[in-house]
Amino acid sequence: MEVTFNQLFNSSNVLFLLLGAMYVFSMHAGLAFLEVGSVRKKSQVNALVKILTDWGFTTLVYFIIGYPIAYGISFLVPASELLGDNQGFDLVHFFFLLTFAACIPAIISGGIAERAKYWPQIIAGAIFAGIVYPFFESLVWGQNPLLGQAGSWLTTITGGIPFHYYAGSVVVHSVGGWIALPAVIILGPRLKRYVNGASNAIKVSNIPFLALGSWLLCVGWFGFNVMSAQDIAGISGLVALNSLMAMVGGIIAALIVSGNDVTFIHNGALAGLIAVCSGSDVMHPLGALVVGGVAAVIFVKLFHIETEVLKIDDVLGVWPLHGVAGTWGGIACGIFGSKALGGLGGVSFLAQAVGSVAALVLAFVCGFVVYKVLDVTVGIRLSEHDEIMGPDLSIHKIEAYPEEAL
Amino acid sequence: MEVTFNQLFNSSNVLFLLLGAMYVFSMHAGLAFLEVGSVRKKSQVNALVKILTDWGFTTLVYFIIGYPIAYGISFLVPASELLGDNQGFDLVHFFFLLTFAACIPAIISGGIAERAKYWPQIIAGAIFAGIVYPFFESLVWGQNPLLGQAGSWLTTITGGIPFHYYAGSVVVHSVGGWIALPAVIILGPRLKRYVNGASNAIKVSNIPFLALGSWLLCVGWFGFNVMSAQDIAGISGLVALNSLMAMVGGIIAALIVSGNDVTFIHNGALAGLIAVCSGSDVMHPLGALVVGGVAAVIFVKLFHIETEVLKIDDVLGVWPLHGVAGTWGGIACGIFGSKALGGLGGVSFLAQAVGSVAALVLAFVCGFVVYKVLDVTVGIRLSEHDEIMGPDLSIHKIEAYPEEAL
Amino acid sequence: MEVTFNQLFNSSNVLFLLLGAMYVFSMHAGLAFLEVGSVRKKSQVNALVKILTDWGFTTLVYFIIGYPIAYGISFLVPASELLGDNQGFDLVHFFFLLTFAACIPAIISGGIAERAKYWPQIIAGAIFAGIVYPFFESLVWGQNPLLGQAGSWLTTITGGIPFHYYAGSVVVHSVGGWIALPAVIILGPRLKRYVNGASNAIKVSNIPFLALGSWLLCVGWFGFNVMSAQDIAGISGLVALNSLMAMVGGIIAALIVSGNDVTFIHNGALAGLIAVCSGSDVMHPLGALVVGGVAAVIFVKLFHIETEVLKIDDVLGVWPLHGVAGTWGGIACGIFGSKALGGLGGVSFLAQAVGSVAALVLAFVCGFVVYKVLDVTVGIRLSEHDEIMGPDLSIHKIEAYPEEAL
Repeated sequence: MEVTFNQLFNSSNVLFLLLGAMYVFSMHAGLAFLEVGSVRKKSQVNALVKILTDWGFTTLVYFIIGYPIAYGISFLVPASELLGDNQGFDLVHFFFLLTFAACIPAIISGGIAERAKYWPQIIAGAIFAGIVYPFFESLVWGQNPLLGQAGSWLTTITGGIPFHYYAGSVVVHSVGGWIALPAVIILGPRLKRYVNGASNAIKVSNIPFLALGSWLLCVGWFGFNVMSAQDIAGISGLVALNSLMAMVGGIIAALIVSGNDVTFIHNGALAGLIAVCSGSDVMHPLGALVVGGVAAVIFVKLFHIETEVLKIDDVLGVWPLHGVAGTWGGIACGIFGSKALGGLGGVSFLAQAVGSVAALVLAFVCGFVVYKVLDVTVGIRLSEHDEIMGPDLSIHKIEAYPEEAL
Repeated sequence: MEVTFNQLFNSSNVLFLLLGAMYVFSMHAGLAFLEVGSVRKKSQVNALVKILTDWGFTTLVYFIIGYPIAYGISFLVPASELLGDNQGFDLVHFFFLLTFAACIPAIISGGIAERAKYWPQIIAGAIFAGIVYPFFESLVWGQNPLLGQAGSWLTTITGGIPFHYYAGSVVVHSVGGWIALPAVIILGPRLKRYVNGASNAIKVSNIPFLALGSWLLCVGWFGFNVMSAQDIAGISGLVALNSLMAMVGGIIAALIVSGNDVTFIHNGALAGLIAVCSGSDVMHPLGALVVGGVAAVIFVKLFHIETEVLKIDDVLGVWPLHGVAGTWGGIACGIFGSKALGGLGGVSFLAQAVGSVAALVLAFVCGFVVYKVLDVTVGIRLSEHDEIMGPDLSIHKIEAYPEEAL
Repeated sequence: MEVTFNQLFNSSNVLFLLLGAMYVFSMHAGLAFLEVGSVRKKSQVNALVKILTDWGFTTLVYFIIGYPIAYGISFLVPASELLGDNQGFDLVHFFFLLTFAACIPAIISGGIAERAKYWPQIIAGAIFAGIVYPFFESLVWGQNPLLGQAGSWLTTITGGIPFHYYAGSVVVHSVGGWIALPAVIILGPRLKRYVNGASNAIKVSNIPFLALGSWLLCVGWFGFNVMSAQDIAGISGLVALNSLMAMVGGIIAALIVSGNDVTFIHNGALAGLIAVCSGSDVMHPLGALVVGGVAAVIFVKLFHIETEVLKIDDVLGVWPLHGVAGTWGGIACGIFGSKALGGLGGVSFLAQAVGSVAALVLAFVCGFVVYKVLDVTVGIRLSEHDEIMGPDLSIHKIEAYPEEAL
């Protein structure tokens, strides 16, 4: 036997993170189909193109700028150095973290659907994935000496307990959702979404595609959360079980509070999964069930308030779903992670609350600045003519079902 | 190097079962799309909701009642105890076995599609996944001291050779299919399915979605079967190859006997996979090919007899597919697992036949009792008005393609 | 602890190749949906049936003839011998390599779509997967003593450096694409595709399904490439990162040169992935980015030339996509794998160019001979009547959306 223990360990580690990266990559297909199903037929092609090309540009900027910012590593060395002596573990580590960074533009995409220009959004996405997200990332996970030890920045105000952060509730989802909110507000609602101050709901096009998107996300999420251990030796069955329980809490709570509405049920599963990420490694499964259930209730109720009362046309509800449920997840980790509630302990409610709120404020401000500047300079909204025609025809010169359109 | 061999082994084990659980979870998306494609457009939303919410309720009852019944374990202890010293292996073990339990209501769902009430079916599914299935499970895999050693109950009548049971042909598929049969009979056919005693076939809505469902099932099935080793050290390439060969046997046999019918070919693959589960670890690949081929022939022919001759409106053919092909698989393991036919041996035809038939009888009786009681008490069938309107609009207040319905 | 290091290593190895096989198997679902979306509605069922049944027949012939030819191994021994002492590693090795062999008919399927007879194509596919492909395979990877050492055949003309070949650019994709070219030419264009010498583009039916196909392929491709190590201890994070970068190069280049065309963007990702396979283990990620970008430009431009100038009705563009981008990948490995361009070195431009061109010539000739013989003997094209009716109704007696067709 020529293979040594270290080789097998390194190999298993590379496989572990690769599988995580593949699962989160497949979640982007999920985000694409969730949007395809939730928009009108005239915007389905645009949804598909946005997610795939956002992925492309995010990869470039994160490779060249973002990852080096967050982790102080450069890829501009020969391939032999990149491989290192651990079979290229650092390279799949990049891939895995990229799949998180690329969620930011993909989350925003669902909020601004059907009326945003293509290229300004690509620019915004590149700024978020290349600069803003890596900055957040470096604060909680990073090892860039300029930015200090991972997770340590909050300890001074919490008496030593750091901001606890397992997977992406706060850095990925809440940041994405809270960046999207100003974008949606600045962009304004779709034409005829509100008529003379009255709400005029725009029907979604395709429930099976919406459900397919949700399924892809639900399955991939176990990669998102479990592989956030970032090392196979750190794998935890508790993370898997808590993810499951929060998803189920979200499904059942959404079923009940929405009156058996298929779109809320499929998004409720996601709300639960978004909220569980942060504390999935420290909560009790029954705590996770509650966290997920509350997240779904937040989503269902707040989506109604956002779109019907505040008249913010957030097409996929990304602010209540990713933004607020993500913030709730960051805070909930400080509650349900405590030993008193059956958790593993070692978490501080204060640290979680301060960290989660700080993240949302920063995200909102960054989103506002970027989209305001883009709006004033190049404009972020399609012309009325192009919006009526639909982004598929006006941007991509093709319908989603070309044969049918004949 | 700080990581020990035991840590790597435990970690690999957790990963192994997690992947299995994720694959079988993704099979539920497959069951959802198989049903979406096989029902009319007015029942597609209902199919999607049923599978996802059945999953939710099954998780709850299996967590609280079912798994403790089958394995004598409780989750009502602090998270630190749940984690144990094997990185939470028991928790992913629960997740993996849950994905099997949740197949029971998902299988039934396809048979009773388009005319069943929502909540009575949720109750029935919870009873099956929370009580009935765990009872079966405990007989063949369980370690509950009250119910005796796994697999040992049949040895007394077979002279020492236990009921051989690798993956879910009998306990999952045949139990699901044979529970579904009385449900379908008690429920009665869809309106206008049979007119004045004559068959009036109802057309399926969407072959691509049906095929997508089949593909998700086919791919995930390798997780279903291979990860049934339940321990990475027990992994067997033979199980993978036999699953492949049985699937191919099912595809080709269905192609030939159905006259190149797309629905039978995509279901034939599933028939082969259902039948191979039990003996996938002991048969020769050519034996598996035959077992899968026979399963597909059984499905094609029996579905015709069931729906055209016996006039039982089993929409997705879950009784011939899961029920009878599953029973065939349990028995076939006793034939093709023998050394005489190139198998590994150690199986008894008598044990397999008696065990498989006992399971179907028990399943049929349980299904009959539960559905009869529900039918008499709360009623299990939609009103004629609601059925004509379709479950999507009558239960969920939405169509599958809302924009189109305008 | 009863499990030994060797057991864990063997088990991890079986899992590794099994996952690879499952991912590439899922890519066949991708090929199916790519074709479903790219053809007219009247040919969607045919696309689904072709891919799944091609898989079935390929498995049989590769099991009985192909794999033994390529690797000198027979499966006609008892199951106990098949299992061996490595938990059946050889059996998942077969499964993994089968998933590659089965790509050949699946690739051709997209070129000849909408007007080819069913059974002649099954025969052709069986010949390619059972005899032609294994012959190529044995030349570059095989261990059949009759055919010499893997990869060594070119060393005599290149001064010692063998043909470098990591994953399937040449043997799978270019062979598939270059076999398809004569098939498409012999078959002739679809009716009314060219009218009086003028091009009359036939619209695709369903962009979301086309995109779903592309996503399934993109995700699975990381299994295709990374698991081509064929041994977990050989896993390389560089292969994963290079695959990612080439895909992204393909996405962005296709976006730019196609003018934001959704079909080219989703196929551009595939062009990048096809081209990167061969040299994915030796190139620098920035080299891979360029290789993928060039591949997408080749695809977009050559598809136009092929279908508009040369008037070859290659429905999915499989010749420029798999054939030419694959050949480019084989050659590019000899350029971007060099140390001068940041690669790991050890590659010869001459060996790559000669090997890649030799493969395409052989593939073209084999394809020409097989399809010419079939055309002259049994005929490969549907009658005009059947083509107008569409293969779904004329071959499979069913439409893709039967309820709608009422």
